[in-house]
Amino acid sequence: MVDARGLAGQLRTVLGDAAVITDRQRLRTYECDGLAQYKVTPALVVLPRTTGQVAAVVRACAAAGVPFVARGSGTGLSGGALPHADGVLIVTSTMRSVLDLDIVNQRAVVEPGVINLHLSREALPHGYYYAPDPSSQQVCSIGGNVAENSGGAHCLKYGFTTNHVTGLELVTPAGDVVQVGGKAPDAPGYDLLGALVGSEGTLGIATKVTVRLTRSPEAVSTLLAAFPDTDRAGAAVSAIIAAGVVPAAIEMMDALAIEAAEAAVHCGYPPGAGAVLIVELDGPGADVEHEFAEAERLCRASGATEVRVAADDAERALFWKGRKSAFAAVGRISPGYIVQDGVVPRTALPQVLRRIAQLSADTGIRVANVFHAGDGNLHPLVLFDDAVPGESARAEEVSGAILDLCLEHGGSITGEHGVGADKARYMPRMFDADDLDTMQLVRCAFDPQSISNPGKVFPTPRLCGERPGRHQGTHPLAEAGVAEVF
Amino acid sequence: MVDARGLAGQLRTVLGDAAVITDRQRLRTYECDGLAQYKVTPALVVLPRTTGQVAAVVRACAAAGVPFVARGSGTGLSGGALPHADGVLIVTSTMRSVLDLDIVNQRAVVEPGVINLHLSREALPHGYYYAPDPSSQQVCSIGGNVAENSGGAHCLKYGFTTNHVTGLELVTPAGDVVQVGGKAPDAPGYDLLGALVGSEGTLGIATKVTVRLTRSPEAVSTLLAAFPDTDRAGAAVSAIIAAGVVPAAIEMMDALAIEAAEAAVHCGYPPGAGAVLIVELDGPGADVEHEFAEAERLCRASGATEVRVAADDAERALFWKGRKSAFAAVGRISPGYIVQDGVVPRTALPQVLRRIAQLSADTGIRVANVFHAGDGNLHPLVLFDDAVPGESARAEEVSGAILDLCLEHGGSITGEHGVGADKARYMPRMFDADDLDTMQLVRCAFDPQSISNPGKVFPTPRLCGERPGRHQGTHPLAEAGVAEVF
Repeated sequence: MVDARGLAGQLRTVLGDAAVITDRQRLRTYECDGLAQYKVTPALVVLPRTTGQVAAVVRACAAAGVPFVARGSGTGLSGGALPHADGVLIVTSTMRSVLDLDIVNQRAVVEPGVINLHLSREALPHGYYYAPDPSSQQVCSIGGNVAENSGGAHCLKYGFTTNHVTGLELVTPAGDVVQVGGKAPDAPGYDLLGALVGSEGTLGIATKVTVRLTRSPEAVSTLLAAFPDTDRAGAAVSAIIAAGVVPAAIEMMDALAIEAAEAAVHCGYPPGAGAVLIVELDGPGADVEHEFAEAERLCRASGATEVRVAADDAERALFWKGRKSAFAAVGRISPGYIVQDGVVPRTALPQVLRRIAQLSADTGIRVANVFHAGDGNLHPLVLFDDAVPGESARAEEVSGAILDLCLEHGGSITGEHGVGADKARYMPRMFDADDLDTMQLVRCAFDPQSISNPGKVFPTPRLCGERPGRHQGTHPLAEAGVAEVF
Repeated sequence: MVDARGLAGQLRTVLGDAAVITDRQRLRTYECDGLAQYKVTPALVVLPRTTGQVAAVVRACAAAGVPFVARGSGTGLSGGALPHADGVLIVTSTMRSVLDLDIVNQRAVVEPGVINLHLSREALPHGYYYAPDPSSQQVCSIGGNVAENSGGAHCLKYGFTTNHVTGLELVTPAGDVVQVGGKAPDAPGYDLLGALVGSEGTLGIATKVTVRLTRSPEAVSTLLAAFPDTDRAGAAVSAIIAAGVVPAAIEMMDALAIEAAEAAVHCGYPPGAGAVLIVELDGPGADVEHEFAEAERLCRASGATEVRVAADDAERALFWKGRKSAFAAVGRISPGYIVQDGVVPRTALPQVLRRIAQLSADTGIRVANVFHAGDGNLHPLVLFDDAVPGESARAEEVSGAILDLCLEHGGSITGEHGVGADKARYMPRMFDADDLDTMQLVRCAFDPQSISNPGKVFPTPRLCGERPGRHQGTHPLAEAGVAEVF
């Protein structure tokens, strides 16, 4: 393997001097993404401006056997864009043009560095927007959203990034430029988009992204409901969904999260609430009016002590302010915290929340719960103080135990933040060896050298040289007698 | 390669005598699927009843290098289940249990042989149904739907099979049994479901399918609108979609299709119409009422000469009767016909229909148009008489020219019937060599021996032994100087 720094001269010829960074001080500004607990200084950073330049960098890496990692805005929370110490970090944030705003066909084609919210701003005057809305939407890039299959509060109704991407231009780990999908969905042949979206940079780098634009809703209605505890708030969530109402968003915060938000932004949530729900409906006016009344009724029937309906956009913004600032607000009540991301079936929410509370009581580690309740996507904030010896380690344990709870209830180790560098070790808790091996067949097909964001997603890289096929002895049916397969 | 017949003894031990067919006469009943123009008698047919039996058959094939083809009900229209003369046909129609009807989580787990409509019948008493509705839904199997990513009239609003499958149990071409996805969407790791659904049996055989169940709509409203010509009917389609209304279905039939349907089933469509539209809306009552009025108004504004609104289920069924019988009805006005399946952007419908009419006039080959107008998914019926020398060959030419028209307008060579044996030769008209090669990386990863439904989808099988990577000289950037990549 050539040292990545050895490629600097060659890449300067292709990208220009200013777009190749080798200065140690400047390299350090890229040492982590939004998950700051992992830090690695990359050997080299490049700032390409075109697909051709990205392909040229990847081809240089492939020829030299040098690993590379793609990075957009660097806001990810699983360390998916964590650099490789001996590799090239390919930063796409300078590729930020909206190339085509095709309103008639409800599509946009964008470069990977385009900021999520900027796309919606461009589409809004035409009556459209880009639906997936991560909390970081003011700064996160579409390319990063594609890599991590990002979600957001309104993905309950509208789906995740994968449901809004209809085409990708991809630079493969060999440096080929290929087109997968396009403006129309469901093209003939293999639909590789699903595998590419959410592959966290391990199958190549998206250089153009074709996305659906969603029509701006005619009406939006939002309520804030206070409950004595999370059990009753959870019951309201289940009742609303069971009634066939699909809100745009249902968000829950527990007492500790409310306390933090109040301390930070004075959002004026009902005092003394054990839990609050924000329920937002959007769509055709007639529909929203009818279903919103139903949602309000179900909150009260489930034990809400107070229900406030947003009278206007200003009041709606106030409801959301507490929710959106909750992660950062936790800093007001704790010096350190871990943002966890797990999923449980919606119906298991009350049990899992009770188990988390028990875990917290048993360990003395405080846990604030802020989450996308409609999806069952938990974001427990596990609080700790580094000044207390051993507390951060205990917080890590609690955080891991929460994932085990999610799996025990039929859930998942990540809802929307991705596996990245952080959760690769948890993958075997969710998938057996054959399932992981099958995924890695695809990894090896695209990236036989394992140079495209290595060390992410998979705990144990598959040896790509081996002949794909059945592994003797590992298969549950391998030793099965004839009687067992009848 | 061992002769497939040589496996008969071994497979009888595993499956039992009755489930292995070698009798020539009985083998011939499997010689084609719904596309009867291709006929191949398989060497061997097996009727497995469990996942273990399917895996055992596939392992036997893999060990011997014998090709295999999976078949459900055999209703496909692209020859996707066309047998291999030297291979084993694995018929899954005896695996037809609904294993789990999980109403609370809105999911069902079914065996691949379950008939599409049977699943809806089981879910209906609980207020749910399975949304994708191919015209063959009374007889086609869910396994076949998964293989071909089947569509249907109501897929405009609800999406294709791929949007309703959340998990698969798959027997890989090596005979491994793996689980991909589950009841929850968007699991960590690669989402391989998209690639598997619609892979037409080339990546393995689904032995269990987890699907979404959709809540039965509160209200359904249907109208039939007559227009002087397809131009004005097409304008109505565009106007309805542009107004933000998403009907459950918008179907169009032209004059020749109406004539055929009238001759066959006396559906009583407005006499003298140059085109009819069936527009169906479903959803919450308040929403449907509001939007249906808008759709009706837009039909009239676009030049409808008559608009009928279905007063009850009986009248709605009558509207649909003409549409659903149209393919078969064409037999009343022509001894032979080809069912084509192409897609164009909705906005290009009027031009493409005019070009098809011109093509018909130039060649003397009649073309009846019946299609999912909302999706731009054309089903031209190209009529011919085998008794007229050369006419069937000219019909084939016209049918192919229609696909070229679709591509020329930014469309696709298949909307919902798949590529199968029939359209593999058209794939290079839609995809360039690098794009097809990238798809085949996945094929080779799963099926390095090319034994899983070989000869389908891809016109030229990739040589799986070659090292995946960039092909010198084939890439547009390979010879590009530095100046070109800036």
